[in-house]
Amino acid sequence: MTHEAPLAPGATIGILGGGQLGRMLAMAAAKLGLRAHVFCPDPESPAFDVVRVTTVAAYDDEAALARFLASVDVVTYEFENVPETTAAFVAAQRPLYPDVRALATTQDRLIEKTFLRDLGIATADFAQVDTASDLAAAITAFGYPSVLKTRRLGYDGRGQVMIREGMDPGTALASIGGQPAILERFVPFEREVSVVAARDHAGAFAAYEVIENEHENHILKRSIVPAATGLAEAAFDMTGRILDRLGYVGVMAVEMFVVREDGQERLIVNEIAPRVHNSGHWTLEGAVTSQFEQHIRAVAGWPLGATARLGDVEMTNLIGHDADAWAQLAADPAAHLHLYGKTETRPGRKMGHVTRLFSAQPSGG
Amino acid sequence: MTHEAPLAPGATIGILGGGQLGRMLAMAAAKLGLRAHVFCPDPESPAFDVVRVTTVAAYDDEAALARFLASVDVVTYEFENVPETTAAFVAAQRPLYPDVRALATTQDRLIEKTFLRDLGIATADFAQVDTASDLAAAITAFGYPSVLKTRRLGYDGRGQVMIREGMDPGTALASIGGQPAILERFVPFEREVSVVAARDHAGAFAAYEVIENEHENHILKRSIVPAATGLAEAAFDMTGRILDRLGYVGVMAVEMFVVREDGQERLIVNEIAPRVHNSGHWTLEGAVTSQFEQHIRAVAGWPLGATARLGDVEMTNLIGHDADAWAQLAADPAAHLHLYGKTETRPGRKMGHVTRLFSAQPSGG
Repeated sequence: MTHEAPLAPGATIGILGGGQLGRMLAMAAAKLGLRAHVFCPDPESPAFDVVRVTTVAAYDDEAALARFLASVDVVTYEFENVPETTAAFVAAQRPLYPDVRALATTQDRLIEKTFLRDLGIATADFAQVDTASDLAAAITAFGYPSVLKTRRLGYDGRGQVMIREGMDPGTALASIGGQPAILERFVPFEREVSVVAARDHAGAFAAYEVIENEHENHILKRSIVPAATGLAEAAFDMTGRILDRLGYVGVMAVEMFVVREDGQERLIVNEIAPRVHNSGHWTLEGAVTSQFEQHIRAVAGWPLGATARLGDVEMTNLIGHDADAWAQLAADPAAHLHLYGKTETRPGRKMGHVTRLFSAQPSGG
Repeated sequence: MTHEAPLAPGATIGILGGGQLGRMLAMAAAKLGLRAHVFCPDPESPAFDVVRVTTVAAYDDEAALARFLASVDVVTYEFENVPETTAAFVAAQRPLYPDVRALATTQDRLIEKTFLRDLGIATADFAQVDTASDLAAAITAFGYPSVLKTRRLGYDGRGQVMIREGMDPGTALASIGGQPAILERFVPFEREVSVVAARDHAGAFAAYEVIENEHENHILKRSIVPAATGLAEAAFDMTGRILDRLGYVGVMAVEMFVVREDGQERLIVNEIAPRVHNSGHWTLEGAVTSQFEQHIRAVAGWPLGATARLGDVEMTNLIGHDADAWAQLAADPAAHLHLYGKTETRPGRKMGHVTRLFSAQPSGG
């Protein structure tokens, strides 16, 4: 189902997934007078603290889904791994944004990279790997090191392994569970950047400025805006083409590598995420409209908000026990502290983030 | 009860009152990883949409209050008319901020104005009015026009009447229900301003810049920051003295009149509100820390946040059918739109507000 008219205040947005992204989406909906109903299997979901109506059920529980759908006007999600059957069940009854095509394209690295290549957008060289002999052939083509990734369900470095000289292809494939995979040629990048952008029902496009990202242990640690790259226009152009080709509605993040070849910068798209994104958290204080409000606006059929940046920004994730420093962070007048209400601190778990604005010079975006 | 140590993330703040102020307080708590439990008799309370745990009960329902108190670590409120017995019941079991003294002082106009006068802070001349003959004597003293106000439970112009020449004192007193009242000398003010400020457990004080307010039909229509007055330092000084004398913890709003006498500006305090305040809504986008987060910080025993202003600001209330223009407002890239999720539009009802920042020059506050 699709809808054309904007949702009126008081309407309810169903959100699949109850993590910090769902939590911040629900708060953005509330700011606009919209309600949110969060569906998540985990009874300890952080998003449950900020909405009145919740469903705790498995994503394949069709009776629970049917009740959820009866109470909402439109559905979105905070994670790209919404099961295909769940997405189809939802989309048959309510508008789903971003739609099943966006999910199908981004849930599978092979489909995603093929989609990008067909759009003329540079990616790392990649090859389909179903067997150890596929892998051996791909290693021969791409050399060492190269990166073996499951086609599905990888995030924060899970489901991937670096292939180095001497590693046995069968062992490597076994280490990611023997799942359908791709091998990617290693990209010696200069920096990692992302574009967080939105597209509305009418095709309008709005991007935030290019974000520079630093990862630690495969987890985003820090985002800095603006990114130090002269390729912002090219990055926006690629992102716009991706959104247009998908007929996309909502916020998307496009992760890119900046590589330097013969003294020239070049962009390679690493991954696209059909949702609000950790690298866009700075927009809560650093941009006129937050990525969360922007996504809700798009999903609700409202016009997109302004994306202008309000200063130079640094966003730092609080990962695991980083968040134990909440009292010091709360005492820092320059730190905008966000904690996600997670009851259990685990290594690698995103517990919160801190945003700092270093100037208040307005800037286009 | 009082507490000294800051509440750790995951703690629960109980909020008495479920209107838009409670709603925005609850969202501010969530940003900091704190939970909120909202207690309100109205099952349609706007704040219920943004918290998981709610109590729908009358403020004098002690069984419901006891259950509520068992689930929270500290209690605050969004309105000054918390019944005295409720406040006492709460304060016997949990820390209540602002405390019963702040409530007792601000719930009764006679006590409030006497408190201010005793602090050496200018107010309109006032007299206690219990009978028609009290009123006649006070009118003789203050002349026409003067303003008759109930001592308790007045807001947005309710419970007050302008006394003009020829009006019968008995009729005037009957028009406000014959309740205990005060008569105030009419103040021919040049402008209305307010100071929104906070004090923490340790006595630290932080004020936002002085706000200029325009009312329509006794309801705040527009706030502009900074106010056009040279008396900011005097306004902060008065506010600081009020908070200190009360040993106050939390955000308070002090409404003042700027009067001009013999070419000199002078400040007269009109009213103090022991809570976040409509004239402080601009701080959500216009200041480093919002008044809602500031109040939560104080109540939770956290350090106060920075109050610096991020630009010139105008906040406009959406009253009654003003909010029907939500679609146009949503399409205005300069408008930060807030809707409160109220299901029924009534004349005079605050449905939302819009904040506009006109420059992004940082400024101390």
